[in-house]
Amino acid sequence: MVDLNSVDARSGASTALDRGPSSHEEVSTLAQQAETGFRWLSEQSRGARADLLNDLATALEDNQQEIINTADRETAIGVDRLRGELTRTVGQLRFFGRVILDGAYLDVSIEHENTSLPLRTPDLRRWNVPLGPVAIFGSSNFPPAFSAPGGDSASALAAGCPVVVKAHGSHLATTRLVERLFRQVLEEANAPPGVFQVVYGREAGILLVEQPEITAIGFTGSVSSGLALAERAASRPTPIPFYGELGSVNPVVVLPSAAAVRGESIGRDFATSVTIQAGQMCTKPGVLLVPVGPEGDALVAAAAEGLEKFAPAHLLNSRTRDSFVHGIRDVLSDPRVKQVFPPASESADQVAAVLAVVDAAELTGVHHSAVLEEHFGPFAVVARYRDLSDVLSVLRTLPPALTGAVHFEDEDDDGRVIAKELIRRSGRIIYNGFPTGVMVGWGMTHGGQFPATTSDFTSVGANAINRLLRPVTLQDAPAALSPLELRDDQTMIPRRINGVLHTESRTK
Amino acid sequence: MVDLNSVDARSGASTALDRGPSSHEEVSTLAQQAETGFRWLSEQSRGARADLLNDLATALEDNQQEIINTADRETAIGVDRLRGELTRTVGQLRFFGRVILDGAYLDVSIEHENTSLPLRTPDLRRWNVPLGPVAIFGSSNFPPAFSAPGGDSASALAAGCPVVVKAHGSHLATTRLVERLFRQVLEEANAPPGVFQVVYGREAGILLVEQPEITAIGFTGSVSSGLALAERAASRPTPIPFYGELGSVNPVVVLPSAAAVRGESIGRDFATSVTIQAGQMCTKPGVLLVPVGPEGDALVAAAAEGLEKFAPAHLLNSRTRDSFVHGIRDVLSDPRVKQVFPPASESADQVAAVLAVVDAAELTGVHHSAVLEEHFGPFAVVARYRDLSDVLSVLRTLPPALTGAVHFEDEDDDGRVIAKELIRRSGRIIYNGFPTGVMVGWGMTHGGQFPATTSDFTSVGANAINRLLRPVTLQDAPAALSPLELRDDQTMIPRRINGVLHTESRTK
Repeated sequence: MVDLNSVDARSGASTALDRGPSSHEEVSTLAQQAETGFRWLSEQSRGARADLLNDLATALEDNQQEIINTADRETAIGVDRLRGELTRTVGQLRFFGRVILDGAYLDVSIEHENTSLPLRTPDLRRWNVPLGPVAIFGSSNFPPAFSAPGGDSASALAAGCPVVVKAHGSHLATTRLVERLFRQVLEEANAPPGVFQVVYGREAGILLVEQPEITAIGFTGSVSSGLALAERAASRPTPIPFYGELGSVNPVVVLPSAAAVRGESIGRDFATSVTIQAGQMCTKPGVLLVPVGPEGDALVAAAAEGLEKFAPAHLLNSRTRDSFVHGIRDVLSDPRVKQVFPPASESADQVAAVLAVVDAAELTGVHHSAVLEEHFGPFAVVARYRDLSDVLSVLRTLPPALTGAVHFEDEDDDGRVIAKELIRRSGRIIYNGFPTGVMVGWGMTHGGQFPATTSDFTSVGANAINRLLRPVTLQDAPAALSPLELRDDQTMIPRRINGVLHTESRTK
Repeated sequence: MVDLNSVDARSGASTALDRGPSSHEEVSTLAQQAETGFRWLSEQSRGARADLLNDLATALEDNQQEIINTADRETAIGVDRLRGELTRTVGQLRFFGRVILDGAYLDVSIEHENTSLPLRTPDLRRWNVPLGPVAIFGSSNFPPAFSAPGGDSASALAAGCPVVVKAHGSHLATTRLVERLFRQVLEEANAPPGVFQVVYGREAGILLVEQPEITAIGFTGSVSSGLALAERAASRPTPIPFYGELGSVNPVVVLPSAAAVRGESIGRDFATSVTIQAGQMCTKPGVLLVPVGPEGDALVAAAAEGLEKFAPAHLLNSRTRDSFVHGIRDVLSDPRVKQVFPPASESADQVAAVLAVVDAAELTGVHHSAVLEEHFGPFAVVARYRDLSDVLSVLRTLPPALTGAVHFEDEDDDGRVIAKELIRRSGRIIYNGFPTGVMVGWGMTHGGQFPATTSDFTSVGANAINRLLRPVTLQDAPAALSPLELRDDQTMIPRRINGVLHTESRTK
């Protein structure tokens, strides 16, 4: 029984995958194998895990053309963008190798026993250990970077957690290819297959969340699917953490000081940011707050002009296109929408860019309007405001987002006021710039207050590993039974010893 | 309408509190004031927050006799133990002052912009910011250390989060006193009252969880109350994290190598650990695994002898006593219980220590037996085992706990096997010791897999502050708008700069 298809995003042509959905039994077997994978990973040094990450990276690199072509056929993202994304994914795997070699993520703290006090205090050695097998639900819009070989997998394997990926239905062949490549790397490393596995089919994903061996979920997708899985994760006999990146309408505030000096260039850059990857980015700027008046008008005109230049494009799949078309129809039927640039075009299977203009004051306190929802695709709202209190009201009406941006001139103190408000709601604040483009590095935060993410964490950058670790303290452990990183003679990683943090560790 | 009473734990005599339960309106007002407190705290430097923590500590110290006497009357814990607990609470507030001055908790990472690449990478500055107002539900058994002025409050205020405590019904007068003392300190510091507040009454606690201003919950208490509140926290329009320390049956494994060499002293120390504070400790050793045979017999005899010496004691309150008496009755009616030391005594209001002996093999896979549940009071189970697989089976049958302990001789490799199993389930592993006694310091972990705690964290020690922080990255922020800790010229705290961790920060 084969009922899984790889679909060409442009032509709609469907090819049967070389396998069907994972059965209940298969999911349960994979979860048990993940447990075996966990034991194997626990026996590997950090160096060996970094080598494995590098080998996985090299396998992607060596087969990049096939991956890119397959992903392009399944998603219509385009080979150039996909090449960039693959490079990022390769770099991300290697970066996490460096993160674990650095060792700060272990957060080691050693307190030697103290027998000079009336009551002896024990020897305490604290560090972070991996949670266990992790289930990963990737996104539709980044077939490598936020999917099977993406940030969740890289941070999990770095932590020492085996991975079971639920293959995303919109790029099954790409995932199947990655699975094959990674399995080969594992074989060559004499690693058990349970270190990295994939399940196929919607039902298998749900079953996966319920397997007792699974200890955490990484999810990137819609609010509705995310919350449904989160509820399952929470209602297991043993609840497990659910790290979901859900929806994000990213606000960009342009203060009058910036509109006056560089309104048109802000408008142009905004149009570019909205239409990157046909607007199918979780960091797409969704609402642009622009002052009323001629300088704001010029900014909006420049943005509209930029959007007009966007060549109609195929979206990721027919479901994404349908919900975009319906969503925009809902937006445009809202009486609050005053203007539309350019007039909405509805070709059979490609979509044009759309900009809807509203009055900021009319958004305050509004809930359940399509205008304030995320629409995956080349669309944004411009909200024209009269004063700062209008802006603050809109920001407080919008659900918290992954990012917030503010444009202002240096001497303008309102920039500080807006940034302060944005910081309360988002994990990344952009000053005089746009939110698209999320660097993989030590300093990145990709997360925000609910519903941007289900709780406060980052799913991108070094600290993404923190989600998959838990703290353990060994009390009076014999040195011979302590992991290397907790021994007095270890000198390679940052450690806190008797309360003092050393980047080059010292012994007693 | 006064219907809140402070009850003498020994005599049962009841005194009306000088106030009634908090009304719906009062809870909502306090939550709004907490928001004002949050804004005030956000404007204070780390140094100012540390000063505030020190002032709160001093207020407790200066009024220790009154606090200890009030708490002793309400809990029957005894003035000596309460004096120790107060000293710990005072030290804990000051310790968190040092934690924030140290600054590592901010986890600062600075990546300077790079314009030498084809695509410029932005300037990224990451740190941790406080969540916002926190609701705290303290425990019955530590009126200062895990209640109004305890670890949850100390770590929250250190993080910059205002606190609203739900007063525990079993030490209302103690909480009222702490509230008065802390309010005075806040007044003297010109802080708004919203920085530290208290609500009274069961219903007020539930309302508190639902206030939109509250951003996290700290809870120490029973599994049933904890899960009920956790569900409310999760089903708010904006779900918030619930950090619950629930129940813990702490296993102590004695391997034959240790039983042979020092069985009797292990037995004696076990009896002491079980009866500290009349066994009303979340770290009380609940199950002792002892090998069958004469050496194990001697160990058990020594433990029984130690428990016999325990003078019957008042428990914290009549509810605790009733559930202890009923719980032990359930245990003793279980046919698996082979022996009881000493025979259960049931005086009207004081309880004696009880030890029930079972066969380890009969516990494997057993669920819902009183034998495997936590019983708050001077009680423990001894499980006699035949071989290592018996031990592993019992450990896997028991719910995960805060701690796990193993006694063995150095050359005994089974110690490693048991420790490995314990590490998968608990946050603190004790080698050749007992779990009671939780040091407040940099290296402590007080938490474990569910249901020991609701998720993996520590509620004691420096890292308890992590629960109340969230990551934020500022992208291309003008230096003038950056917090001091993120500026290039800052040199006082550990920071990662362009990927390298410096304990003394460097500039570009």
